[in-house]
Amino acid sequence: MDKSNLKLYVDEYLKQYFLNKGSYNKLIYESMGYSINVGGKRIRPILMLLTYGIYKEDLENILPMAASIEMIHTYSLIHDDLPAMDNDDLRRGKPTNHKVFGDAIAVLAGDGLLNEAMNVMLEFTLNSNCIEAIKATKIISNAAGVEGMVGGQVVDILAEGKDIDMDTLRYMHEKKTGALIKASILAGAVLAKAPEADMRILEEYGEKLGLAFQIKDDILDVIGDEKKLGKKVNVDCEHDKNNYISFYGLDKCKEMCSLLTEDCIKLLDSLSMNCIDLKHLTKILLNREN
Amino acid sequence: MDKSNLKLYVDEYLKQYFLNKGSYNKLIYESMGYSINVGGKRIRPILMLLTYGIYKEDLENILPMAASIEMIHTYSLIHDDLPAMDNDDLRRGKPTNHKVFGDAIAVLAGDGLLNEAMNVMLEFTLNSNCIEAIKATKIISNAAGVEGMVGGQVVDILAEGKDIDMDTLRYMHEKKTGALIKASILAGAVLAKAPEADMRILEEYGEKLGLAFQIKDDILDVIGDEKKLGKKVNVDCEHDKNNYISFYGLDKCKEMCSLLTEDCIKLLDSLSMNCIDLKHLTKILLNREN
Repeated sequence: MDKSNLKLYVDEYLKQYFLNKGSYNKLIYESMGYSINVGGKRIRPILMLLTYGIYKEDLENILPMAASIEMIHTYSLIHDDLPAMDNDDLRRGKPTNHKVFGDAIAVLAGDGLLNEAMNVMLEFTLNSNCIEAIKATKIISNAAGVEGMVGGQVVDILAEGKDIDMDTLRYMHEKKTGALIKASILAGAVLAKAPEADMRILEEYGEKLGLAFQIKDDILDVIGDEKKLGKKVNVDCEHDKNNYISFYGLDKCKEMCSLLTEDCIKLLDSLSMNCIDLKHLTKILLNREN
Repeated sequence: MDKSNLKLYVDEYLKQYFLNKGSYNKLIYESMGYSINVGGKRIRPILMLLTYGIYKEDLENILPMAASIEMIHTYSLIHDDLPAMDNDDLRRGKPTNHKVFGDAIAVLAGDGLLNEAMNVMLEFTLNSNCIEAIKATKIISNAAGVEGMVGGQVVDILAEGKDIDMDTLRYMHEKKTGALIKASILAGAVLAKAPEADMRILEEYGEKLGLAFQIKDDILDVIGDEKKLGKKVNVDCEHDKNNYISFYGLDKCKEMCSLLTEDCIKLLDSLSMNCIDLKHLTKILLNREN
């Protein structure tokens, strides 16, 4: 696999995965496939692949695991966009899932994607029959659940229109966005049987990268280009949502984001192995425009 | 464990599981715990435990796996009751999850329960580190997903207000209700390392039991007692839903249900082991009033 263009492999895997499947239930594959293929930077799968790639050559071996985490990410976006949640009409410049398929199918498409991610990871685990696959699946599953992403979503909903303290904001972002980003990195490291000392460094790297990623998201929500983002800007402000900007202001956030990225690079430099590709991606994430 | 009162063990496990958990995300445990503890016959966990119990004594060992399948069943009910889906206000005589916690938290409580079921099964798998645990987890996960329960839900939604043929109805019920019932039985058998010949018999038993269970549900929807059921009757008719009654009429359905139960008993009689408790439960399910 060409490490400089992993997105292509992930895109292709996901595109093929949902193509021409189903019988009476065909529509659910179309709905899941629609949101999976509507675009997306595939950051989580690429993070997993590049982390694995620090230690191993056969990146294609873990492609199903990498694709699974994108399925989980996509399910969270479908449910997040529902009228019962954020009620968004656009995602990545296209109508959201429920706008195309209706609310009921969108609920089920989200459920189906989370479940399918588990199916794929369990199939991978059964085929490889190694303890590392179970561990990686568990890391991802835990990060997606109520002590991870779902927990962050809950706090996000509870915080809407309220003043919350810094600890609550940090919890919310660490769980809502950070948990799955960290899990992508850790799962890649576990699957590659990374040394224990490197695991600890990568865990810290994952935490800092997740935080930088979320702050950058908040920055883009204020100063981003709607066309490049493919969604409305200033949404957090309109929804009266708490974020890093409302706490620290734009300039301080930009500074925090740069400092966190520097920390990330330093952490990667302290690993036992060379990881030029992961460092490159880390910098790209800081400078991204969508 | 007292095989004649397994419901108590399942109830207690599930009650303790969601008690006093969480921090900022506390509400999601309350919401999940509310629907888990609102009642329920715990048929799927009991089926798993009794099937396992044909071959093994240590039923308590697989209690987490049994409880997981009830979490999945409960998540499906929470999402099924949402305004975007069936829009039901009552479930087991109590207000549905979204009526108590609001639509957003109800969506997340469903997501959280499916995810938590996976967490519990993966924890069990990691601790036991045996291929049977991976296989059982995969059986349950596959049965819950788009080629199982979710797929059945999709067809149910698509069929509403339309004339469908018998094959579509059968698909819908096999997937929506039957898949998870069959999976409970098969997962129990796999965990107990049942002989291959018994596995095939139990698979057929699971299919027939699932079908009998669904037809009985349809019968109760017509002639059941609202108080005993804890939900409105004649709902399918009001929602213009296809079911076995609308296809075959009440008398034929009662006969089918009895014949299927007889088949189930015969299948159990052909197993290599005695399974008096599973036979007893099979008869109870035929004669149930809720």
